[in-house]
Amino acid sequence: MERSIGIGLLGAGTVGGTLVSRLIGDADAISSKTGLTFDVRRVGVQNLEKKRPFSFTPGLLTDQLEEVVDDPSVDLVVEVMGGLDPAGDLILRALEAGKPVISANKELIAERGPELIAAAEKSGVPFLFEAAVGGGIPIIRPLSETLAGEKIDRVLGIVNGTTNFILTQMSEQGTDYDAALEEAQVLGYAEPDPTADVSGADAAAKAAILASLAFGTWVGISDVYHEGIEAITAVDIGFAEDFGYAVKLIGVCERVEAGISARVHPAMIPLDHPLAGIRGAMNAIFIEGPTIESLLFAGPGAGGDPTATAVLGDMIDAARETLAGAQVAPRIRFSPGELVAFEDISTEWYVRLIVDDKPGVLAKIASGFGDAGVSIRSVWQEGGETKADLIVVTYPAPERAQREALRSLRTIDEVTDIGSVIRVLGPGQ
Amino acid sequence: MERSIGIGLLGAGTVGGTLVSRLIGDADAISSKTGLTFDVRRVGVQNLEKKRPFSFTPGLLTDQLEEVVDDPSVDLVVEVMGGLDPAGDLILRALEAGKPVISANKELIAERGPELIAAAEKSGVPFLFEAAVGGGIPIIRPLSETLAGEKIDRVLGIVNGTTNFILTQMSEQGTDYDAALEEAQVLGYAEPDPTADVSGADAAAKAAILASLAFGTWVGISDVYHEGIEAITAVDIGFAEDFGYAVKLIGVCERVEAGISARVHPAMIPLDHPLAGIRGAMNAIFIEGPTIESLLFAGPGAGGDPTATAVLGDMIDAARETLAGAQVAPRIRFSPGELVAFEDISTEWYVRLIVDDKPGVLAKIASGFGDAGVSIRSVWQEGGETKADLIVVTYPAPERAQREALRSLRTIDEVTDIGSVIRVLGPGQ
Repeated sequence: MERSIGIGLLGAGTVGGTLVSRLIGDADAISSKTGLTFDVRRVGVQNLEKKRPFSFTPGLLTDQLEEVVDDPSVDLVVEVMGGLDPAGDLILRALEAGKPVISANKELIAERGPELIAAAEKSGVPFLFEAAVGGGIPIIRPLSETLAGEKIDRVLGIVNGTTNFILTQMSEQGTDYDAALEEAQVLGYAEPDPTADVSGADAAAKAAILASLAFGTWVGISDVYHEGIEAITAVDIGFAEDFGYAVKLIGVCERVEAGISARVHPAMIPLDHPLAGIRGAMNAIFIEGPTIESLLFAGPGAGGDPTATAVLGDMIDAARETLAGAQVAPRIRFSPGELVAFEDISTEWYVRLIVDDKPGVLAKIASGFGDAGVSIRSVWQEGGETKADLIVVTYPAPERAQREALRSLRTIDEVTDIGSVIRVLGPGQ
Repeated sequence: MERSIGIGLLGAGTVGGTLVSRLIGDADAISSKTGLTFDVRRVGVQNLEKKRPFSFTPGLLTDQLEEVVDDPSVDLVVEVMGGLDPAGDLILRALEAGKPVISANKELIAERGPELIAAAEKSGVPFLFEAAVGGGIPIIRPLSETLAGEKIDRVLGIVNGTTNFILTQMSEQGTDYDAALEEAQVLGYAEPDPTADVSGADAAAKAAILASLAFGTWVGISDVYHEGIEAITAVDIGFAEDFGYAVKLIGVCERVEAGISARVHPAMIPLDHPLAGIRGAMNAIFIEGPTIESLLFAGPGAGGDPTATAVLGDMIDAARETLAGAQVAPRIRFSPGELVAFEDISTEWYVRLIVDDKPGVLAKIASGFGDAGVSIRSVWQEGGETKADLIVVTYPAPERAQREALRSLRTIDEVTDIGSVIRVLGPGQ
C-alpha cells in the first residue's frame, strides 16, 4: 500500500536542498523499503531572491512562511531554516494544527523544547529532532527510546565538528589555534564568523538536549555553562599528550550527588578513552549507565548529507505513526530535577603557570591552592633561562574553590602569567 | 496518565530474571520517564524444577507456555527463552492474537523472521528485537528507522563477545587459542560447549539480521557463510600485527556488484580502523553509506543487564504504540534481492605456508596462485633452520579461485603445511 505524504519544507539551504534532491533521487528506494512516498508541496524561504545551490520547481518556493504550514496539502512540516525566529512560532503553529514536525534546530529545541514538546503531546503528533545533535549519528532515538529504561549516569559528547577539527590539527600538525582556525575556514569546517562554534555555544545547545533526554529533566540552554577553545595553545596540547591526555571540547552531562549537571568546556581526556581517538570533524557521544556500562556512537556530526539522512529517518518514522491514525504518546516525559550550578561542580584542573624560576615560588603556589581548599595531585616544572612553565594538576575540587585558588595565584609576584586552565576528565561519580 | 501493561514472559534465565528485577526495582523511574508501568502477569518456563538465580512470586511461574500467551491479562509478550522451538510457535501465536512481541532470539529471527514479521504486520502490532544483535548497543532501531532513508553499502560487525575476548587475549597476552578459550570459560565469557560462538554460527545469525535490515532484502541464516576462529594461532596474530593488522571475527554484510553478501569469518583489519580497537568481550558495528560516510556503534554485546535494557526499551516503545490503539505499519519492508554465493565473493587472502627452505619453492607457489588466476600482492619469508614460514598476501580474487590456488599449493612437495588462511578486510566496493 503506497501512501503519499505531503511535505512542507521550511528552509532551503544546504540541508533543505540536499533533502529535496534525496526525496527525488531516492524516491524508489525509499518507497520500496518503507512503503511511503514523500511529495514536497511547499518550500518556505525568508528571501526569494537569495541565490541557492539547488534549483526548485517554479511555484514551490514562497516567502509566505505561514502558508507552508497552513497549506492543506501539507501533512508534515520539516524545519531546517535554523534560528529562533520565526522557526519557533512556525513549528508551534504546525503542531497546534495537528501536523507532525521534524526539526534539525538544536538552538530552538534547547531554548523552547518543553513548549514545543507539550504542543506536540497535546495534538498527539510526533515532534522529532534526530538531526539536532550529532548530524548523521543516530543518538536522539537511542537515548530517548532504546535507553528509556536505563538510569543514565553520564553522557560525554564531542558534538562540535569545527572545534574537534581545530584541536585535531593543533595536536597532529603542531599548529597554533589561529592557524588551525584559518585552515578550518579554508576547508569549510568553520564559518567566516566562527564564534558560535569556538565559544562552545553550539555544543552547549546540544549538551542541553542530550542532558534533557538522558535524565528526563529539562535542561535549558542557559543552564549549560560553556567555555570555548580560543585559549587552548599547542603548548598545552603538547604537555597534555606527554601526560597521556588528549584535549577535546566536551559536553559533559552527568548525575552528581546533588542533582544533574550539563556543561561544555575543553577537557583533558585519557588517551585510551574512546573519545580521545575521535579525529577531525567527526562527532561522538559516549554514554555511561549502570547496566549498559558504556556505549559509543561515532560518525559525521554535520554536513548536508548526513543531516538530511537523519531528517529523512524522522520523516519516515513520523509518517508511519501518523498514518496509523492514532494519537501518539510522547517518547519521553520530563520531571523536575535539581540542576547543580557549575560553581559547585568538582573537577580536576590542569593549570599551566609561567613563573620566575626563583626559590620559594612553588611554596607560594602550593599555599595558594591549599588556602582555597584545593589539593595538588602533581607538579611538573620545565625550566627556561629565567622563566619556567610550572604545571599543576589538582585533585577534584569545586569550581568555586579552584577559581579562588586561581585568583590568589595571580597575586603572587613570581607568577608572570597563567598560561591556561584545562579541566581533566575523571571517572564519573 | 498512568497505563499499566500486563507482561507475559517466556523464559526465566539470566535475561528474564534481570528484566523482572529491573521492572520491580526501577518501576518508579520507568514510570516517571515514560508514563508506563509494567506488571509481569505470567512467566513461562520449560522446567519448573530448575534452580534459578532469581526468585519469582509463587504462582507466577508456569510450564504451560501457551497459557502465558493466551492469558487475557497479558498485553505484551516478551520472549527470552531462546532456541527455535517452542519459542517460534509461541511468538506466532501471540502475534496472531494481536499481542505485541519483544524477542531477544537472534537464532529464531534469522531463521523465521519473514514469517513472524508478516504475522505482526497482519495484526498491526509491533514485533521488536533490539536485543537480538549487539546486546545493549542500540543498532536494530538505528538501522531500520533512523537510517531507513540511507542506501547502506556495508555493515561490519564484531557481534560475538566470546570470540573477540579470545582473540584479544591471544593478541595481548600472546596465548594460544586453547589457553585463551579456557580463560574465557573460567571468566564466564564462553560456554562449557563453546561451539556456537567459536564456530561463527552465533555471529552468522546476527549478520543475517543486520544484512536484512540494512539492505531491505531478507537474508536467512543459511545464506550466511561462516567460518570460526578455531584455526587462528598466536603466530598469525603476531604476523598480522607486524603487518599493521588486527585479527577479528567479523560479520561482513555488503553490496557487491552482483547483489548482496553476508558472511562471517576471521579477518585482518587495519590497525587504524575503528573496529581494530574493540577489545575483550565488547561488540561494535560499523556502518558505511553514501551520505553517512561511516558510523560506529560500540558497547557491551551480551550479558543479562545490557540485554534486559534493550528488551525494556522495546517494551516501552511497543507499549507506547499499542496504547495509541492503532494498527502500526511495519518499520521496514523487504523486497527480493540477489544474494551472491560466497564462492563468488572477492577477498584478499593472507596465507601462511610452512615450507622446506629450498631453492625454487617460491616459484612453485607463485605458479599455484597464478594458475588459479590469483595475483600476489606481497610475499614475506621468515626462515628457520630447514623450515620457513612463507606468507603470501594476495590481491582480491573470488573465493572460488583462492580455494583452487590453495588446493594446488597442497600438492607442492616443499609445502609441508598450510599454517592458516585469513581474509584481509579491504575497502568496500
